[in-house]
Amino acid sequence: MTEIPKSHPRYESLMTREKITEGVEKGLTALQGLIAQGRGEAFDYLIGEKTIESAHYSEVAAAALLLLAEKPVISVNGNAAVLAPSELVTLSQLTNAKLEVNLFHRTEERVGKIVEELKKHGADVVLGENAESLLPLDHDRSKAERDGIYSADVIFVPLEDGDRCEALANMKKLVIAVDLNPLSRTSQTAHISIVDNLTRAAANMIELIPDLKSMTEDELWDIIDAYDNSMALIGAIEEIKEHLTQKQDELFGPEEEPQPDPKVAAAMQRRSEVASRVMIRGGDLMME
Amino acid sequence: MTEIPKSHPRYESLMTREKITEGVEKGLTALQGLIAQGRGEAFDYLIGEKTIESAHYSEVAAAALLLLAEKPVISVNGNAAVLAPSELVTLSQLTNAKLEVNLFHRTEERVGKIVEELKKHGADVVLGENAESLLPLDHDRSKAERDGIYSADVIFVPLEDGDRCEALANMKKLVIAVDLNPLSRTSQTAHISIVDNLTRAAANMIELIPDLKSMTEDELWDIIDAYDNSMALIGAIEEIKEHLTQKQDELFGPEEEPQPDPKVAAAMQRRSEVASRVMIRGGDLMME
Repeated sequence: MTEIPKSHPRYESLMTREKITEGVEKGLTALQGLIAQGRGEAFDYLIGEKTIESAHYSEVAAAALLLLAEKPVISVNGNAAVLAPSELVTLSQLTNAKLEVNLFHRTEERVGKIVEELKKHGADVVLGENAESLLPLDHDRSKAERDGIYSADVIFVPLEDGDRCEALANMKKLVIAVDLNPLSRTSQTAHISIVDNLTRAAANMIELIPDLKSMTEDELWDIIDAYDNSMALIGAIEEIKEHLTQKQDELFGPEEEPQPDPKVAAAMQRRSEVASRVMIRGGDLMME
Repeated sequence: MTEIPKSHPRYESLMTREKITEGVEKGLTALQGLIAQGRGEAFDYLIGEKTIESAHYSEVAAAALLLLAEKPVISVNGNAAVLAPSELVTLSQLTNAKLEVNLFHRTEERVGKIVEELKKHGADVVLGENAESLLPLDHDRSKAERDGIYSADVIFVPLEDGDRCEALANMKKLVIAVDLNPLSRTSQTAHISIVDNLTRAAANMIELIPDLKSMTEDELWDIIDAYDNSMALIGAIEEIKEHLTQKQDELFGPEEEPQPDPKVAAAMQRRSEVASRVMIRGGDLMME
């Protein structure tokens, strides 16, 4: 692992990056998982690398739903196993949810390694090695354990692919997703979409659970009934736009500039003339 | 390589992903390059996976500047070598720019492999194997060839890290960057920041060059003089915000809802009561 000083302004993000490349070296994470991590990083950056308000609300609802579920399952892929193994094991213990390894780029070897990794972090039982083709998806992606994901009523799927999220929702399961992109098909398909970094989301849910456990079942259902996933997703999109505006203001000054500087205006004018000349010529060129 | 049908709605993006994982398998791309690719993908998605207007303008200026340069160099890293090898070789030929392999996670083996890859795509000479510690950066990152990047007046650095981009700019070189994140330090530091996917950016520049070559030197300088990098970056940020608003409208309806539905309003009210109850209890909990 490359050494990163704690003082580095991007320490958290760089450490996560190290964890996930180490995951590939250990055979826990697929190469494609690194690309997914990068996509997540970009969206995390755009929400300010913190738990936004709407995500916190989704986390409350998600924790409540896991407590209310009769057969909850926490699905774990290669990225999740590397980013938050202890948190996922603790969450499963606090909610009596089963853990099941569930891979998009499935190899039996990788399933076995992730099962071991979760056991190292305190899990007693981890499903996934006896998966059968039970989901309506093409071969490898159809795999699930009969007593796990297949018969679950509530599934917590961090970092899941859109197709599988949809297949699970179509099987009348309640799906809780963690996905930093509020526009993704996963976010759009899940019943509760948490737009947060998995490590923060799982830690927040763990923190909420003792309090939720002191509530009655009716009170927990109140939380679920009142939850509106579109509101959570709109909240996340608005947050990204606000963050962009704020960064833009920091870097270039506030948006509404009273009067354009005459020199800049003249340059813009020339610029657009030159540009249109280039475009026209470019157009001629394309017609040749 | 996984087979992807051309009809897939995300064909381009998936093919790029395949190219870059194949690059890792061939030893051209570093594992960290996959994470960078993912970050790029997310921003590309947010600008609509097309060349936006402000990027086109930056590409015109960038191509003009490469033609005006006396000692232009195109810097190539592992991702660039995999994503656009032919385009970069063609661009170097059309602008008389030298090609130099320049890696953030440098190994001599990987430098050699990238040199070979570019030669396979038609390059005659590729610098990088005789790099010395010439840039004011820590050991590995300080490497550049004396007759290449070190003595260049204009450097085209696709997908460059912020520190190195800054070091090059501080050495009074004119830096053209390709970076899909308009807020990144690289985008902020470069003189011309192209907020576009590298493959599209290089192809666009190649297409522009014959026309730019028919212009006088004064006309080319007009383009450079009139170019305003802040305008290009602000344009990109605005484009992302507009794209988010458009997606939001598609998914959830237009932003300005005339009147909240009374049922939704009641649910929101209950939601916020339940939420605040949870927060208060959560607060108590944290104080214990």
